[in-house]
Amino acid sequence: MTYQAPVSDIAFSLRHVADMDALQSEGLFPDATPDLVDTILEEAGHFATDRIAPLNREGDRIGARLEQQGVVTAPGWREVYADWSGGGWNGLAGPVDFGGQGLPLLLNAACLEMWNSASMAFGIGPVLTMGAVEALAAHATPELRETYLAKLVSGEWTGTMNLTEPQAGSDLAALRSRAERRDDGSYRIFGQKIFITYGDHDLTPNIVHLVLARLPDAPAGTRGISLFLVPKYLPDAEGNPGRRNDAFCSGIEHKLGIHGSPTCVMVFGDEGGAVGYLVGEEHKGLACMFTMMNNARLAVGLQGVAIADRAYQQALAYARERRQGRSPLWQNGGMSPIIEHPDIRRMLLEMRAKIVAARGISYLLAAAIDRSHHETDVDRRRQAANRAALLTPVAKAFSTDIGNEVASLGVQVHGGMGYIEETGAAQHFRDARIAAIYEGTNGIQAIDLVTRKLPLEGGDVIGDFIAELRATVATVAASERFASLAPSLGRSVNALERATAYMLAPRERPEDVLTGATPYLRVFAIAAGGAVVAKEALAAAAIDPHEPANRLRIDTAHFYATQISPQAEGLAESAVSGYVAAGLETVL
Amino acid sequence: MTYQAPVSDIAFSLRHVADMDALQSEGLFPDATPDLVDTILEEAGHFATDRIAPLNREGDRIGARLEQQGVVTAPGWREVYADWSGGGWNGLAGPVDFGGQGLPLLLNAACLEMWNSASMAFGIGPVLTMGAVEALAAHATPELRETYLAKLVSGEWTGTMNLTEPQAGSDLAALRSRAERRDDGSYRIFGQKIFITYGDHDLTPNIVHLVLARLPDAPAGTRGISLFLVPKYLPDAEGNPGRRNDAFCSGIEHKLGIHGSPTCVMVFGDEGGAVGYLVGEEHKGLACMFTMMNNARLAVGLQGVAIADRAYQQALAYARERRQGRSPLWQNGGMSPIIEHPDIRRMLLEMRAKIVAARGISYLLAAAIDRSHHETDVDRRRQAANRAALLTPVAKAFSTDIGNEVASLGVQVHGGMGYIEETGAAQHFRDARIAAIYEGTNGIQAIDLVTRKLPLEGGDVIGDFIAELRATVATVAASERFASLAPSLGRSVNALERATAYMLAPRERPEDVLTGATPYLRVFAIAAGGAVVAKEALAAAAIDPHEPANRLRIDTAHFYATQISPQAEGLAESAVSGYVAAGLETVL
Repeated sequence: MTYQAPVSDIAFSLRHVADMDALQSEGLFPDATPDLVDTILEEAGHFATDRIAPLNREGDRIGARLEQQGVVTAPGWREVYADWSGGGWNGLAGPVDFGGQGLPLLLNAACLEMWNSASMAFGIGPVLTMGAVEALAAHATPELRETYLAKLVSGEWTGTMNLTEPQAGSDLAALRSRAERRDDGSYRIFGQKIFITYGDHDLTPNIVHLVLARLPDAPAGTRGISLFLVPKYLPDAEGNPGRRNDAFCSGIEHKLGIHGSPTCVMVFGDEGGAVGYLVGEEHKGLACMFTMMNNARLAVGLQGVAIADRAYQQALAYARERRQGRSPLWQNGGMSPIIEHPDIRRMLLEMRAKIVAARGISYLLAAAIDRSHHETDVDRRRQAANRAALLTPVAKAFSTDIGNEVASLGVQVHGGMGYIEETGAAQHFRDARIAAIYEGTNGIQAIDLVTRKLPLEGGDVIGDFIAELRATVATVAASERFASLAPSLGRSVNALERATAYMLAPRERPEDVLTGATPYLRVFAIAAGGAVVAKEALAAAAIDPHEPANRLRIDTAHFYATQISPQAEGLAESAVSGYVAAGLETVL
Repeated sequence: MTYQAPVSDIAFSLRHVADMDALQSEGLFPDATPDLVDTILEEAGHFATDRIAPLNREGDRIGARLEQQGVVTAPGWREVYADWSGGGWNGLAGPVDFGGQGLPLLLNAACLEMWNSASMAFGIGPVLTMGAVEALAAHATPELRETYLAKLVSGEWTGTMNLTEPQAGSDLAALRSRAERRDDGSYRIFGQKIFITYGDHDLTPNIVHLVLARLPDAPAGTRGISLFLVPKYLPDAEGNPGRRNDAFCSGIEHKLGIHGSPTCVMVFGDEGGAVGYLVGEEHKGLACMFTMMNNARLAVGLQGVAIADRAYQQALAYARERRQGRSPLWQNGGMSPIIEHPDIRRMLLEMRAKIVAARGISYLLAAAIDRSHHETDVDRRRQAANRAALLTPVAKAFSTDIGNEVASLGVQVHGGMGYIEETGAAQHFRDARIAAIYEGTNGIQAIDLVTRKLPLEGGDVIGDFIAELRATVATVAASERFASLAPSLGRSVNALERATAYMLAPRERPEDVLTGATPYLRVFAIAAGGAVVAKEALAAAAIDPHEPANRLRIDTAHFYATQISPQAEGLAESAVSGYVAAGLETVL
């Protein structure tokens, strides 16, 4: 049940995979010195380990509840949230003009991973607030920014995203919530939203809802959607929470996991209309939401990494303690710790290899987002933005898929004990399951990848990425220590290249590409993950191949190249085999 | 939430994959005529659909509870169990001498699948009772059989298996429960057992525990374990439940799923000693338990198939109803049903393909067990027994692995609704998770396969099986309609053959084989499953390729050959890559 933030593993990935220090040395983030980075990671690790992680179990067992006065979070959550936001963690990468520290999103990504390992149900709240900050910073009027932004940056108030309606989930064109103009320039909002994360809670004295709705004269479809800011309490003259707005939580969902995170049904305007303020232009609300899409998808991907790491730590601890049978590797008397059994070790190494790969891909995405905002050269900014766009669906879907896989392996390592709730492994398995669904299902990520991201710049964006993977494989091939891994890693890159060519070729039947999207995304991630583990192994060997953590990094690369990379070719074959037709039509 | 027993799909697999009718026409089960088989399947389907399935939700929500008087099952369970056992379902394959119908285990397997689709928590109880019947029929004294067997065959009383202790799970050598001889030939049992399925309940007036324990003079390890029958109530002179025995449930576990099935901590002998009777010879209890191992593992594998089918049905129904977006396949107006989206269809076909493959492998195992008992020729009996031994770990592990995978896809097809408990998809996901763990973890199945089963008859048992797979691939290659599938199916068989050769070669380091066991088992199942779906497709085409269910069978084979078979080669490469060394030692 214990969690220890893996600060040194995270720092290693930040530096040797995502090139954290270059963000500072190149002048993009002059303040983000290596010392500061290390200090922040240490402090975040302490807070996650000592303060948030102990909340996780009660959050699951008791959960958030809807009471007369609104949603009440689990015991202890208020205090920890107050200390967390008071410590400045919410504004780590927030805008300096509104009290943020303006540090790299990459560093914030590392912290998000730790908050979410400690408790996914806790960690998802700030993700929404940070998203609201981003949307308002980019699109809100100066007045709205003045009133709301500093409070959101600090985390004194939290933010929500109100998109989904019963008939409008993945397809927002079907959205029906409506907005009416008022003479004073404000709006009144009416409608019901579902699946609203932290739609209500008692952590902060106010909540800032961002709500998608249609104006009366709005065109049909996604081009008729506007974005509104709807506070739970309308700020008074001093900017403090004043009159209660007509925005209420009418119920919270009974979910498989993340019980500590209230998932609310929100009703706007049942008592005359919720006061709202336009964000961005009328009818262009969806574009405003897309502003924060990369970050939100990165954050959910990090949840996958995070829950996987939590599950791995728990399984590892159990496998070291629990004794059953005698492994041929066991030289001592009595039963071996089960970690000595090759099959258990295989499971643990699979868990670790997938975590390292997904973490690296996620950090590469975070670094690309940072560069897309901070590079001074416009071409480099565009390149970075394209790289971020390419990696976003992969980081989101792969990380959350492996979150499920690793959490399931975590249950398996525990044997029968894994199925008992008190053990805790099952909670991770339940918690993990949402991340592959929300913030765009993983199927939608795969479709985004093949239909929108691969064609970027005529295929040059994916082409450049593949070229970089090849360069890493060439470095591996040229190294004496790791040359034996190069063929397997290289074949996964070849598989990616073949499948990419198929996806980019002109095609009469869009369903061929759509059918192959999911296996294609996995091929992409396997090839990219191979480069990640290789970079870690090369760096580990260069620093000190005998240091225990580095030995593990090297073995992780060996494991990956023999146990994970070989899956790419078969998946690529599936990705290019086209639509398998009609069968299910017969059951329609 | 509804379930409709897939009687025609089950009958199709029984006949065209497992050759059900041959068991009758060859004279092994003269009574099991095709008509009788169809009637029984129909009746079982009705009972599963109409009576058991409605229990499933309340079983999950309320679950079994430990009260003052013992364990109380969820509302409605007693009545349905009474009608189920009253209908003769428990004794379908039971011994005729004790009131059973003596029908094929293969037919019982089909019924077990339906009971468990309707409710895994309900279905696991009879699995234990049937196991107790088997053990007692083979090893108990005539007196014990006379007293207990008819009541267990009818299901008037239920049976349990008491193996696990806190320190003795996968490794029964560590077992500590003890038995003392008494002058009257009976024994007194002392000890604590955990994870005892239906260890106590209110479904029947008595429970017959089979308990492993050590006698005082027992050798250490697994050769010092004896098997005892310990009734909850000692039968009186009329054979009815009499004096309460010293065997009590002291607690039930709070589990991830199958809440309707009470998982008990059992305490024997805390009030002076539980009266027990020896089954088989002293110190040879483990051999008695192994008698029923094939059947119990088959049954748990069927649970994997069963829960997968339940999840598939629910996802399919949702995908037909739910409308979001517009698929390029959708010719009508408005939003498409999501089943029209190629990625959703891919998920549904993956679910179906895995179910068909796992069902077929499980039925092949059941047929082999039947033949191992009923063939008149001793060589054919031995061959069948070897085939059953070979397929047992594959059927158990693959079916329960795909149970998890399919249940997870079922959640995914539902999108956000899948994460809400009321939807029901999450229950299947939680219920499914135990089957890969109990009755020997899937890792142990894989090790059993490579270390004990492949070497049978000097490798001839696996060799003959591979030859049969090849013959099916040759039939596919020779058929005009399916020839294009043969290369992919054939490559999976080649991969199995290569990996088998590696596993059978003399080897200095046992850890190489142990490391590759899990991917090897999956290669085996993929290749075997390819033959299963091919047989279904060939039969479907021969009968009527345009009939809707047959079209779906044909498309399932196409899907399997393009989306599942290609995974075999990569997995085989992993299976033969040997032990990836030391890494985790560094964290010991």
